[in-house]
This record gives sequence, C-alpha cells and structure tokens, in this order.
Amino acid sequence: MALLTDLYQLTMAYGYWRAGRHRVPAAAELFFRREPFHGAFALGAGLAEGLRFLRAFRFSAADIAYLRSVLPSTTEDAFFDYLCTVDASEVTVSSVPEGSVVFSRVPLLQVKGPLLVVQLLETTLLCLVNYASLVATNAARFRLLAGPEVKLMEIGLRRAQGPDGGLSASKYSYIGGFDFTSNVLAGKLYGIPVRGTIAHSFIMSFTSLDEVQPKVLAPLAGGEPVDLAALAELWLQQVCELLQSPPEKANRGELAAFVSYAITFPHNFQGLLDTYCVMRSGLPNFCAVALALHQLGYRAIGVRLDSGDLGQQSKEIRRVLRACGTTFQVPWFGSIPIAVSNDISERSLESFIQEGSEIDVIGVGTNLVTCPLQPSLGCVYKLVEVNGSPCLKLTEEEEKMTIPGIKAVYRLYDDAGHPVMDLMALEDEPAPKAGQELVAHVLGRRGEATKVLPSTVEPLHRTYFRDGQVCEELPSLPEVRSHAQKSLSQLSPAHRRLREPQPYPVAVTEKLHLLLAELRQARQ
Amino acid sequence: MALLTDLYQLTMAYGYWRAGRHRVPAAAELFFRREPFHGAFALGAGLAEGLRFLRAFRFSAADIAYLRSVLPSTTEDAFFDYLCTVDASEVTVSSVPEGSVVFSRVPLLQVKGPLLVVQLLETTLLCLVNYASLVATNAARFRLLAGPEVKLMEIGLRRAQGPDGGLSASKYSYIGGFDFTSNVLAGKLYGIPVRGTIAHSFIMSFTSLDEVQPKVLAPLAGGEPVDLAALAELWLQQVCELLQSPPEKANRGELAAFVSYAITFPHNFQGLLDTYCVMRSGLPNFCAVALALHQLGYRAIGVRLDSGDLGQQSKEIRRVLRACGTTFQVPWFGSIPIAVSNDISERSLESFIQEGSEIDVIGVGTNLVTCPLQPSLGCVYKLVEVNGSPCLKLTEEEEKMTIPGIKAVYRLYDDAGHPVMDLMALEDEPAPKAGQELVAHVLGRRGEATKVLPSTVEPLHRTYFRDGQVCEELPSLPEVRSHAQKSLSQLSPAHRRLREPQPYPVAVTEKLHLLLAELRQARQ
Repeated sequence: MALLTDLYQLTMAYGYWRAGRHRVPAAAELFFRREPFHGAFALGAGLAEGLRFLRAFRFSAADIAYLRSVLPSTTEDAFFDYLCTVDASEVTVSSVPEGSVVFSRVPLLQVKGPLLVVQLLETTLLCLVNYASLVATNAARFRLLAGPEVKLMEIGLRRAQGPDGGLSASKYSYIGGFDFTSNVLAGKLYGIPVRGTIAHSFIMSFTSLDEVQPKVLAPLAGGEPVDLAALAELWLQQVCELLQSPPEKANRGELAAFVSYAITFPHNFQGLLDTYCVMRSGLPNFCAVALALHQLGYRAIGVRLDSGDLGQQSKEIRRVLRACGTTFQVPWFGSIPIAVSNDISERSLESFIQEGSEIDVIGVGTNLVTCPLQPSLGCVYKLVEVNGSPCLKLTEEEEKMTIPGIKAVYRLYDDAGHPVMDLMALEDEPAPKAGQELVAHVLGRRGEATKVLPSTVEPLHRTYFRDGQVCEELPSLPEVRSHAQKSLSQLSPAHRRLREPQPYPVAVTEKLHLLLAELRQARQ
Repeated sequence: MALLTDLYQLTMAYGYWRAGRHRVPAAAELFFRREPFHGAFALGAGLAEGLRFLRAFRFSAADIAYLRSVLPSTTEDAFFDYLCTVDASEVTVSSVPEGSVVFSRVPLLQVKGPLLVVQLLETTLLCLVNYASLVATNAARFRLLAGPEVKLMEIGLRRAQGPDGGLSASKYSYIGGFDFTSNVLAGKLYGIPVRGTIAHSFIMSFTSLDEVQPKVLAPLAGGEPVDLAALAELWLQQVCELLQSPPEKANRGELAAFVSYAITFPHNFQGLLDTYCVMRSGLPNFCAVALALHQLGYRAIGVRLDSGDLGQQSKEIRRVLRACGTTFQVPWFGSIPIAVSNDISERSLESFIQEGSEIDVIGVGTNLVTCPLQPSLGCVYKLVEVNGSPCLKLTEEEEKMTIPGIKAVYRLYDDAGHPVMDLMALEDEPAPKAGQELVAHVLGRRGEATKVLPSTVEPLHRTYFRDGQVCEELPSLPEVRSHAQKSLSQLSPAHRRLREPQPYPVAVTEKLHLLLAELRQARQ
C-alpha cells in the first residue's frame, strides 16, 4: 500500500533526502475546509484504516524496483537503499475518535515524525479519510431525516465507485447510522448486519404456477404438507373480491414466484410488488400468498416497492393491508412493514415525511454511496511545523491559507451539554478551564475577539499511534456507530439541522492568532 | 470476490435451487438507460476486470461458512454443498470491445448460462462496469474539450472514493484519453505513465538558502561544480530588474526550495509558483533558478500553478517567460510548459479555450475521479430470456421497461464512416446487409418505423468468455485507449459534442418490435 500515493511524494522525498533534511522533525494536519452538503458538521471516519496502513507502511523490494524505473535515472542508489528502511516507527499520530462530529479547519489527524515520512503518508491518509468521512456524514444526514424508528439499509454496491468504494460505503454508512447493508462481503469482513430478499429478475423468471416445485409446505405446527399454490389461488379470489380488482389482472408468473419464495422461506416471505402492476397484481398476489402462509401459521415479513410514487403508494398499500387484516381477521396484517427503494435521496425522505407516508424500511443506494450532492470532502494535509518553525502558506486564495504550528484542540460545551466552540491553541499553551472565561478569535469572522465561558472543556485529540504501534484501544464498529450517534445528539439543533444550519464556531486562541498575524506580516 | 454481491442474489439462488430451476438456461443483459453527463455517448469499460472476476468466480469454504450464518436457518445443507460446486464454466459472455463508444439501451454485456449463476453474477459485474465506464466517459469528455495537444494528467487519488476508486480512476481515465497519472501504484499495476514533481509542502519546508545542502551542481558538459544558490541569487537580481519587481518580495524559502530541487533533479526542474505570490515571488524565483540551470547546460521542464485564475495567470506567465527568453537570449524559455491544477472541471477547460490561455498540461482530480456531474452511470442487469421464453418487465415507469429476448446488435455506418444507428435484432434474425435498406423502430420515438440504408454493418458484440475461459485475445491497456480514441473520432460531431448533442438513434428490428408489442399486450 506504500505505493498508493502520488509520484511527487517520492520525488520530494528524494529532494529531502538529497538535501539531508529527511530526518528533520515535522508535523502535518489533516483537515477539511468546508462542511459537506451545505451542512454545519461532518463525521470523522477512516481512522482505523489509517492506523492499519501506518502499521504496515513499508516499501517492498518490488516497490523499490518499480520506483527505480520511474524516478529520474540520476537518482542515487543510496536513496533507494534508504527507502528500503523507511517505516512509520518514528511517527506519532493523534486524532479525534472515529465517528466524532467534526468541523472545518479543525485537524482530524495530526501526524508528527521525520519530514520524509510525514510527507510520504499524505496521499494515502487522505484517500482513507476523505471518502470514509464523506459517506459517514452522508449516512448521518439520512438518519437524521428518517428519524430513529425507520430502518435504513445501504444497497449501493452496484453503483459504487469500484469494489472497494462499495465496501467502504457499506462500512461507513453503518457508522453514520444505517442498520443494514445488502453487501455480503461487507457483512463478512466487518460484521455489519446484511439483509436482502428478492429482485424483479426472480419474479420475471416465472411465468406460471406449473413452474413451482415443490408446491407444498408443512404447517408451522406440524402435520401434513399443504398445496400452498392452490391455497394462494383461493385466497387470491377473496382478496380480489375485497379490492374489487379483476383476478385476471393478477400476473400468474408473479403469483408463482411469490408462492415459490414463500415455500422456500416460509419465515421470511417478502413480496416485491412492482414487477407488473402494484395495485392490480403485486399487492393482491402478495396478500393471497401471505394469507395462505398465515393459515399455515407463518407471518410474512414485508413488502417492497422499487418504482413509482413511493410515499403515495405506501399509503394505499397500508390501507389494503389494513382492510385485509380486518376482513380476514388477521390483526398483524395491517402493520406489515413496507420497504422502499429507487433512487432515494434526502429530498425523497423529506417528502415521505411531508405526505405522512407509511414507510418502515428504506433502501438507499446511489445517493448514499456516491454522495452526488458533493462527491468529495476535499480534505487536505498540510505541514504546520518543520524543524521547530511553524509553517504558513499564503496563496492567492484566502481559503487555502493554513494555520501554523502544532496545536492542541479543545471542544467547549455549554451548560446544556451542547458543544459551542472548537478551540485551537498552540501545543504549549495551558488548556482552557471549565468555568473560566477565555478569549478566542473565531475563524472567518474578522474584527473583535470573542469571550467564551465553557461549562466543560474536552481535549479533542487522543494519541493513537506511537513507536510503530497503535497505542490506544480501538473501539469495535458498533461502538464507533454508537459514538457517532451520541456525538450527533449532543450537537445543538441549530448546527445539526440539514438546511441552512448555523455555522459552528471554530476559533484560535489569542496566542495562535498573534502567531498567525506575525507570520503573515513577515511573509508579505 | 464471489461474496462481493447483494444478499438477495443468494436468497434468490436458494429459491431457484429449491424449485429445481437453478439449471434452467437464462440470459441477461447489462446496459444503461441514459447517456451520462447530458451527453449522447459513453465509453464501455470494465470488461477485462469482469472477465478476470468470471474466471475466478467460486465460493471458498470460508464464504460458505459465512453464508450459513446469514441465510435463514431453514436453508438446506444440500444447497451449500451445491454452492461449493458453482463456477462460471457454463457461462458465455459477449460484449462490445472495451473502450468502444456505447449508447443507452444497447447491451454492453450479454451473459448466458444456468439461471442461478447468471443471477449470482449481477451485482459484481455491475460494480465492475458501472464506474469504469463512467470515469472513462468523463475522461473522454475532458480530452474532447482539451483537444489533442494538451497533456492531461489524472491526480485524483486523494479525493477518490476509496483506494480502489482511486486505482480504477487512474486506469479508466487513461483509457478515456488521459496521458499520465500521479498514482504510483496504478503505474506499477497497469503500466500507465506516472508523473509528478513537487507540492507546496516541499516549498514550505524551506525558510532560507542556508538549508540547501548540497549547494553545488556540476555543469552538464562536465567540469567543476558551481554554487547554484549563489548563481540563482545573481539571476534573481536581473530577473527582478526586468520585471520591475522588488527582489525582497521573492520569498527566500521558496528560492531555497527551487534551488534544492534543481540540484536534486537538474534534468527535471519544475517550479510550483503559487506557494506565496506568483508574480512577485514564485515566477521570479523560478526564472532565476531556471536561468542559472541553463547556464550550466540544463533545461527546466515547466512551471505549475495550483490556485487563482489559472487561464489569466498562464498568459501573464507566458509573457514573462518570453520576455526572459528574449532579454537573456534563451530561445526555448518562452515555450516552457505551463501546467495547472486546482479543481479543474469541464467548465474550466471551456474558459481556458475562450480566453486563449497558454496552458500546456492540465491536472484533473476531483472532477475527474468522482464524476460530480453524475457520480453513477446507473447500469442495470436484466434477465431477457429464461428457459427459451423472452422476459418483459412492465413497471409503473416506462423508462424501466426492458427489451425482451436474446439479441444480436449491429452498428450501422453511413458513407462518411460515421455510425448512424445501433440496431438490436433477435438472435435468429438474418444480419442486416450493407447497401440494403432496412426498417427499424427507434426507441423513444413513437409512431412510424424508420428506413435506413447502411453503407457498412458491424456486429457490435464478440464472445469473450466461454467454457470457463477467456476465448478472445484481450488488447493491452494502450490498445484499449487507442480503440477508444478511434471509436470517438468516428462519431459524428452532432453526437460527439458535449453540450446539447443530438441523441444517437438506438433501434429494434420490426420482428423485435412486434415481439415487444405482443408481450406487452399479453401482460396487460
């Protein structure tokens, strides 16, 4: 994985080495410049994978051989010999805990070590953190919109940006608050709950009840197997009568597929309703098979819709399910979960809520995994100190300016337990104290300093990597997921809301503010 | 990789198996429903990776053990035993050659084989083709806008959707017409030319000429090493005089970084101009070092800009380079390549052209690899025939309808060699003949049939996989890249243009049209 980087990192490494500066102490910070999706927060993620990369960071003999072929032929042999010895054993990494709410300009990771190594880690760490944080944040937004009750399922593998894009999406959507994934390999690798039933292709593969084999199912309580196909046909008559729908409009292949699936998975029968006509075919066929199953003691687990106006249809479907429940005296029938999919976006969720839909489970694919509202978080990784001197980059664009120096970062909370400010201080400054007023300069706000009186002060970073080892116990994936939900729940509603949120203040101390002004002066 | 799929593929597989239908012959097609980015074409890609997946398709013992834990506990043991034996040896795959221009609704891949296997391949094939084709198409659009002369470099790894997203982006951008990548691992794995020089961090790591070690460089023609730092300082005075810029505005750390880099890579010196002020610091420092190098017989290879108004700045920079070239009598100086990066989009390229920029090399990252204009191609994979019967899916949404039956696909060309129509026929129909008029029904156009007189007829698909083996020689990556450029160049300008192109007609034969009508009738 050490070669998963930009070539210029290696030409620069040679530059440092040749100038004898490769072991100069350096520090870099990884941060983003603007909260994604027009929101006021992001979730920091990718730490565990970043640490795994650090632990294994090393160039193989084959890597070195390849590098010899692409670096200029004047590159000295001794450099390649040196590169063989490079690893992350002298690197120290601190970070916000994975899954934490994070804000622009605040370092997610701080990396300290020899200049050459700190430089070489840049691209890979960015690659591992950028998308992880982006998709976790995206998932968190879906969760906030859906509310805590609705089940959310990630189904994006086929539309993800490559196989690994798909796996990362499954993992970090789970961290962001999704319940399930359809991605089996993600289930196997990460222990995420996997779910899935049937697709249109299964239904389309049947044309008549003759194709159903076997046709019988034993009742749950035991006893002689019953011809479920025949039973479903009887129920179909009754259901169609109730719905005043002509039975010949109910597609026979679809009925066959439902019967076959119900016999195969009597405890897990779910009907996909929209291969043909939902109200004339899918729903009557589903009710018929579910009622037949019920007669044998089994409960259907749901219906699924994959096209059309999902919110409106869910209400019509709920009415029909309730009518069947009442008419045929099957009380649970009215509350059969309704699952939907089909290009679900934040906007879809908003309209489901507005129209009072009856949706219980939502599958989100493309708009979750590819993050079309903003497909990249735009994290950057900048040197903040080299050889004891703070670094400042002054460019043509104000926004691209960096904040110099190695920092300590604190999150300040108010009485109600909401975070009210992230404060960056120089490493050697005393930590702010709870109950003690302090002066801060909020980034992006010109002019006067702000006074803050925090009720609680939390140091935001922990040291996760030192001496080539992970030195802090890493939480499990479900723990990271819980931490993310807790971190989000602490956020005040003004910062948490998705549309036109109030920007969260990120500030620097008086001392850091002065350093910044001084360096700017000196460089201009 | 067999588990890189959606769980429902496996529940359906069990459904087929239990109903004894798992070996029923089936055929599926992989296609997209709409051309991406509001264009009229896409490039088909991902075939070679799809074939590699097919060749290795098999469930390991660990896979099966995991599946036992997630499928319902009622799943029969014999099914898992069967799954152990499943591979792609009975699957036949035909496809358009990788890199071909393709259009909506026309199958990119056709997959034939036992129903259960055809079903199990769906998600993974989609995952491999979707993003590959999307990013190749995106790259092709950048190439069309940039014209054939400008060098295009993919630099998106840090912003890609996961490490594999980054690797795929490098590979398929190259196929789409990019020249280089910054991604070293992509270079090693796929043989793509890699490029890269220095970043802001390298420049920021220097504060004065004292840090430059060594300071000397031997002239190209041999002889005593010369103090390049001192020489550059002399040149800086002259350059600043010419530019009427105060020498003290030229940052010393930047000069030190340039000198150090030039000594390290005398044949490959490139200056990154915008760490501080481009016109007062970056450019004078670059010219000073490049002129010093020239005095020793070396040629600088370029400058790079990463912020600000790139088009305008390129013109100012060119003026300065030309002025230096004339004043100091260094003829090649005026044509030093100018490279730019910084959130380059299609719109950036359009404005570069409009303003007559002087840009020679363009690095594209985020807007290439994450495809923000449309981050997913939306390919689907649909059964078109099961057990000899054509399949039709009729849903609430017209656009989601499938075209039934196993098809042969032909591309029809006019006299000028431009493709004018893709025609889908049933497999058993006679092929259309060059110079012979035929009747076709263009999809999406209601009403009358269209008459076409093709000058050339090309069967679009080749069989690539049969009996568990790849049965057609696969071209190398550069060959795929050339094929893509050729395929694009044949397209008529009306279809090729990026803004408001003329839609390309995709049609079905009279016979397929009748089958479609008949099945629709029967299913309603």
